[in-house]
Amino acid sequence: MTADIITIGDELLIGQVVNTNAAWLGETLSGIGIEPARMLTVSDEIPAIQKALSTSDADVILFTGGLGPTHDDVTKVAIAEYFGQELKHDEFVMQTIVSRFEQRGRHMPESNRAVALVPEGFEVVENPIGTAPGLWYEHKDRVVVMMPGVPYEMKAIVETGILPRFKGRSGRRAIAQRTILTAGVGESTLAREIGDLEPFRQPDTRLAYLPSPRTGVRLRITALAETQESANDKLLGLIDRLHRRIGKYVYGEGDDTLEAAVGRLLTARRLSIALAESCTGGLISDRLTDVPGSSRYVLGGVVAYSNEAKVNLLDVRPLSLETMGAVSEAVALEMAEGVRRRFGSSIGLATTGIAGPTGGTPEKPVGTVWFAYVDEDTAFARRFQLTKDRLLNKTLASTYALHSVRRRLAE
Amino acid sequence: MTADIITIGDELLIGQVVNTNAAWLGETLSGIGIEPARMLTVSDEIPAIQKALSTSDADVILFTGGLGPTHDDVTKVAIAEYFGQELKHDEFVMQTIVSRFEQRGRHMPESNRAVALVPEGFEVVENPIGTAPGLWYEHKDRVVVMMPGVPYEMKAIVETGILPRFKGRSGRRAIAQRTILTAGVGESTLAREIGDLEPFRQPDTRLAYLPSPRTGVRLRITALAETQESANDKLLGLIDRLHRRIGKYVYGEGDDTLEAAVGRLLTARRLSIALAESCTGGLISDRLTDVPGSSRYVLGGVVAYSNEAKVNLLDVRPLSLETMGAVSEAVALEMAEGVRRRFGSSIGLATTGIAGPTGGTPEKPVGTVWFAYVDEDTAFARRFQLTKDRLLNKTLASTYALHSVRRRLAE
Repeated sequence: MTADIITIGDELLIGQVVNTNAAWLGETLSGIGIEPARMLTVSDEIPAIQKALSTSDADVILFTGGLGPTHDDVTKVAIAEYFGQELKHDEFVMQTIVSRFEQRGRHMPESNRAVALVPEGFEVVENPIGTAPGLWYEHKDRVVVMMPGVPYEMKAIVETGILPRFKGRSGRRAIAQRTILTAGVGESTLAREIGDLEPFRQPDTRLAYLPSPRTGVRLRITALAETQESANDKLLGLIDRLHRRIGKYVYGEGDDTLEAAVGRLLTARRLSIALAESCTGGLISDRLTDVPGSSRYVLGGVVAYSNEAKVNLLDVRPLSLETMGAVSEAVALEMAEGVRRRFGSSIGLATTGIAGPTGGTPEKPVGTVWFAYVDEDTAFARRFQLTKDRLLNKTLASTYALHSVRRRLAE
Repeated sequence: MTADIITIGDELLIGQVVNTNAAWLGETLSGIGIEPARMLTVSDEIPAIQKALSTSDADVILFTGGLGPTHDDVTKVAIAEYFGQELKHDEFVMQTIVSRFEQRGRHMPESNRAVALVPEGFEVVENPIGTAPGLWYEHKDRVVVMMPGVPYEMKAIVETGILPRFKGRSGRRAIAQRTILTAGVGESTLAREIGDLEPFRQPDTRLAYLPSPRTGVRLRITALAETQESANDKLLGLIDRLHRRIGKYVYGEGDDTLEAAVGRLLTARRLSIALAESCTGGLISDRLTDVPGSSRYVLGGVVAYSNEAKVNLLDVRPLSLETMGAVSEAVALEMAEGVRRRFGSSIGLATTGIAGPTGGTPEKPVGTVWFAYVDEDTAFARRFQLTKDRLLNKTLASTYALHSVRRRLAE
């Protein structure tokens, strides 16, 4: 069973509003085994809406938006006309709207009478929190649904009225899906390591690579089967095989974050951490302290942008700065040691580099970053060569740093 | 001139990723007078991509996604086949990819050879930061563009290679548009101050409020006219009226940032700054150091999450912590003074608060934040009551802090 999700509104087309409705509907429908085939956004004009309908060959077509009382709310008119149905006043809907206004202590504007118009043959699906109801229509084995565009009203209608109507309809395939999170590895290296796995060449299993400088490469694995149980089994088998090949890069699943994964390892081992950041400018501290409860293991950090700060607040030796330069293995290690001593933390982390866009030299071009790790037993430093983009370099360096700590703690 | 924006990827259809690419493209195209007619998302399958193309009647069709090296990257194959063009190896693209990998000190996996395949008749548009280039094709008065789906790569290609190619093409209606950036004020206050301005009730001028915790409320102002000159004149008149009413909240225009605005003021007045962050966890430092050249005025900062760090690294008096608590006016001021003295900066800024989700008390609930500012002449502190959401509180507190510095420096 496939679905087309059609969202209506100029505010979406000109990018004023990001289309979270479509994403939410896509996720919700896949969750009950209906496969989203297309998402389409068109303007609130009758021909555009009717063309969206005529180009669809999905089993289910969901519309959101354009059901309100204003002149640009033409969705119902367009769809009723397309199916050759007349719009009729619905007294039950009218009474619901009147009572919603009464609940808010307001008088209903006359324009709201348009909201109570329902195309013939369409079933009214109650809007539990707003005025414009959902509308459900079955036509030659297809389902057409209209809903208002206000996100929380749309969601309430789907959850209370639309999903129950889909339950028990035939033709749905069971879908099982999970996202595996990796860091410290690129999309193409992953593809080399796991792309040849035989199940991913079959049509009922899918693997998608979703790279981002902050999260690393996320791997979305989908398994389809006749029953939910066998879809789940197939998925678990796949995930098991992935873990055997690329487990060392995996830090979590789903909505997890690298900073939370580091936090769990620090908590489990009763360790604390302090950060000495130069080129990342506070971003590693910021990411680690995004995690609720991080005050238990993040003692703090020093953003040492100037050489004076490196010397005065982190005890970096002036001689190291003079002979090796601020972007060097020696200074990175001294920064990590210094911050660990100053904060009395178990672990000290440091970054120093040339974020760009200027400041590079032939030996140390823009994108050169040194990272250092120091704990009671170990000290190590690594050099990375990143990009020419300042923000990207900050983000990539913070991700590499967090990944390196995680790998070290997971050993 | 109309455009269809076609985004490709299963991760969009199942709602795992919200389609910010489409929104950004919609905003960018409207900004240069190209009217987005449809946004369409389809799966990474050849028939779906070709159907998207065959149902489009726009003047410009932009594709994003599916240009990478993995097996599900089929956009080029689908589009080349649709236009009856063969894919050919492009040695120039190949060399760019090889050098990108070399810059990062990594070996190019063989799978990346697919990225260097270009359909005949398509022009290569350089990708300034990644491997897969953009592709531009003109066919019977229509333009077809393909770009990778990674947002920052897509944006870089559009800004450096695609927009310049659209300049001077005919058929565009005259639109003048600018976005005014405000901070330290809410949407409803702004609406009260400027919503009654008469020009915004006319159909050929538009005002949109775009609020965000990081940027503040952005005001997008659009003026339409028959000629570009009169659209520009109308827009300038509107902006002038806005500035007279709400000028004190305005920190910039367009893609400017609050942190860059603070940086310009610090540079102009030859001042330096240091940060003492508790609840913001490094976010203010991170934001300030996002600005290229910020090393000239950001000396650094201390993230003082623990009380020990506040005492040892910022000279906060233990008595203040004991009697007033870490989240107090006294401690905020001592942190700002301490960091200013330690770094020898002109200005010291501090934040201390309860980011949440736990840690609140009846007197100091979650969302309580103290902000302090100290320079040679002044010291002041302010209390804010924010939300129950940790990440939102960090962001809002950083924005209020940057806004307060900007206002102080602009006086």
